[in-house]
Amino acid sequence: MQAEIITIGDELLIGQVVDTNSAWLGQILNKQNIKIRRINSISDDAAEIKDMLSDCLKRSELIIITGGLGPTKDDITKKTLAEYFGMGWRIDQDVLSQLETFFKQRGREMLEANKLQAELPDNCITLKNEWGTAPGMWFDVNGKVVISLPGVPHEMKNIIEFKALPLIQKKFKQPELYHKTIITINVPESLLAMNIADIEDSLPNYIKLAYLPNMNMVRLRLTGTGDHGIKEEINAIADKLINRIGENVVVDEDISLPELIFNMLAKSGQTLSVAESCSGGIISHQLTLLPGISKVFVGAVISYSNSVKHHQLGVENTLFETVGAVSEQVVVQMAKGVRERLQTDYSIAVSGIAGPSGGSDDKPVGSVVIGVCSKNEVIVKKHHFIGDRANVINRSANAAFDMLRLLILKEQ
Amino acid sequence: MQAEIITIGDELLIGQVVDTNSAWLGQILNKQNIKIRRINSISDDAAEIKDMLSDCLKRSELIIITGGLGPTKDDITKKTLAEYFGMGWRIDQDVLSQLETFFKQRGREMLEANKLQAELPDNCITLKNEWGTAPGMWFDVNGKVVISLPGVPHEMKNIIEFKALPLIQKKFKQPELYHKTIITINVPESLLAMNIADIEDSLPNYIKLAYLPNMNMVRLRLTGTGDHGIKEEINAIADKLINRIGENVVVDEDISLPELIFNMLAKSGQTLSVAESCSGGIISHQLTLLPGISKVFVGAVISYSNSVKHHQLGVENTLFETVGAVSEQVVVQMAKGVRERLQTDYSIAVSGIAGPSGGSDDKPVGSVVIGVCSKNEVIVKKHHFIGDRANVINRSANAAFDMLRLLILKEQ
Repeated sequence: MQAEIITIGDELLIGQVVDTNSAWLGQILNKQNIKIRRINSISDDAAEIKDMLSDCLKRSELIIITGGLGPTKDDITKKTLAEYFGMGWRIDQDVLSQLETFFKQRGREMLEANKLQAELPDNCITLKNEWGTAPGMWFDVNGKVVISLPGVPHEMKNIIEFKALPLIQKKFKQPELYHKTIITINVPESLLAMNIADIEDSLPNYIKLAYLPNMNMVRLRLTGTGDHGIKEEINAIADKLINRIGENVVVDEDISLPELIFNMLAKSGQTLSVAESCSGGIISHQLTLLPGISKVFVGAVISYSNSVKHHQLGVENTLFETVGAVSEQVVVQMAKGVRERLQTDYSIAVSGIAGPSGGSDDKPVGSVVIGVCSKNEVIVKKHHFIGDRANVINRSANAAFDMLRLLILKEQ
Repeated sequence: MQAEIITIGDELLIGQVVDTNSAWLGQILNKQNIKIRRINSISDDAAEIKDMLSDCLKRSELIIITGGLGPTKDDITKKTLAEYFGMGWRIDQDVLSQLETFFKQRGREMLEANKLQAELPDNCITLKNEWGTAPGMWFDVNGKVVISLPGVPHEMKNIIEFKALPLIQKKFKQPELYHKTIITINVPESLLAMNIADIEDSLPNYIKLAYLPNMNMVRLRLTGTGDHGIKEEINAIADKLINRIGENVVVDEDISLPELIFNMLAKSGQTLSVAESCSGGIISHQLTLLPGISKVFVGAVISYSNSVKHHQLGVENTLFETVGAVSEQVVVQMAKGVRERLQTDYSIAVSGIAGPSGGSDDKPVGSVVIGVCSKNEVIVKKHHFIGDRANVINRSANAAFDMLRLLILKEQ
């Protein structure tokens, strides 16, 4: 069974908004073993929407449309769908009273444009929007299904999870699919591929191996559909790969490095603090996106200036002149300083040159020193990362989490 | 003139990777006044790639393909394009020697799979990749153009900017296009639309107004193509809109709030520090993504635990029991504390409940107190944000930057 996604909005085509909805929908449908054939982004244009919908309905059984349901004039998806399916209009009284409550609670007047959001094509099923004013719509089309959802990510996600997904599962029963992900770090994709070429070549045709490089990491994904035993068969291949790749394997689950660190430290009841210079807060930010992280993450000092490195972390001022802020000595003092002052079991410290300026022959842009520290020791390492500013910052975070992972593994 | 983007990769369809390349390409092409008709994401499948390419070439003059050029077996784009265009193969000696240097510099052995990356379809123009091993390719197809690029974002961007764009500009000359963006905050899209309905209704048909809501902000974008005077005409409409919307207008440029704060403070030579609790580092991270921010941003304390709020920022311990960490009193002390200790002109402080747990009747999830502080005063405000954890965190950052903007405006 196949699905397609249509995301509607000029803002996507001119790049003012990154389409994160499709990736999220991809994950959700993939877990249901529903294959996404294509993701199609088009403009707020009636003819274009109708053309695309016709094409999708030829290829696929489930079409999910996001965007163009807002109360303003440039939002034409609902009207276009009603025309396409030749439907009239009805007022959904439930939606109307929900809207009234929504505006009352927020102390806002309900406008005519908002009231119109309760007007829906007369043969669609309403998918209520708990977090916004535009309801989702479910259209049954000769055994196929078209779902239209608002483009605002948290509204769309809420409708899918609680309203659409139960209906999808009921309508389209799918055979078992199994994924296994192995995350590797610090080994380039081509080297990795050569190293595991014989294992890859011997895969049966119903098991697929994909390489997903991102920064200094590669995710290997084994996927198989089949009868009983596919899980065991894929796990056995994963074990072979893990053995072969060795120390470059980070984890054999599809989780992020911050999640992995969180799990490791939560399990042992230990805590973490961070001192960030060039990484500028990304390590703290990635950690604090995880619910419940306060059990593990105590806080951080973003010591962008040397003065903050000195006053808030206790780095000796003389070091800035003798060896410079991007040095093993400074990073060791940052790591020890933040661990002692914030009273944690572990700490991370990062100092480097994210660019585009600030580099020298000796320390070019991309030079980043990272330290991780426990009560027993400080491990510090010079890295040289390739790429633009955002790249250097992201790679620094990945490398720091990985160094901490190795230190925790060693000590536990 | 129209363009289309084809992004290739199973990882996009199952949502393991968010397609950020298309938005970036959208921005770049939009600046050239090249309209993107569709963005199409498809799998690493030869038949699918050929079908899509045929469809795109019927509709559009320029097709940009990203992905599927890596050295591994699941990368089939190059082979498929050679088949599609009926081309043979050649070794590009420049690419080969560039690859040799690339591996030598990194102290890595060059593998057979890497050498194959210098093998290219015999009638394409090579677009050199300065940051990776897969070169881009330019195919001339009966007056139309197909460009194939690696999917790794920084490699793709580098090839577009320095290799492809000059060729695109030469090949496709475009009439003048003008955009003007107005960024608003704290006014819902529907209210905004009602407020400016008469201005919107009176727009000539060659000027388009789009609403781009994101969190607690809405970007209004006026776009027009035309002969002389389009810039002046759009600017006059923008002035009308700005007058009407009043204090909810943040800025009349398409820049982010952190960029705006950076510009304001850099201009006056003033500095900023941040104390983040529930926002967890996102404010510092968004600031430090900006090159040159060290002129303005000195550092931050991520005071996730109360102990860090007390020891690193000087918040009185008794307050945690009497009024709680999410309170105006605590945020005032955080803002003053970080400003004094990090010795800056301004400071931001944030404390709240990002969820999903930790809420109470009194302070539900989404309750966030934000303070901004100068030498003259502290302004503190309670917010209630809707959405999931990531939403609350992002909205907190937007609101904090906006409060700081108003304080700076007031004082300068």
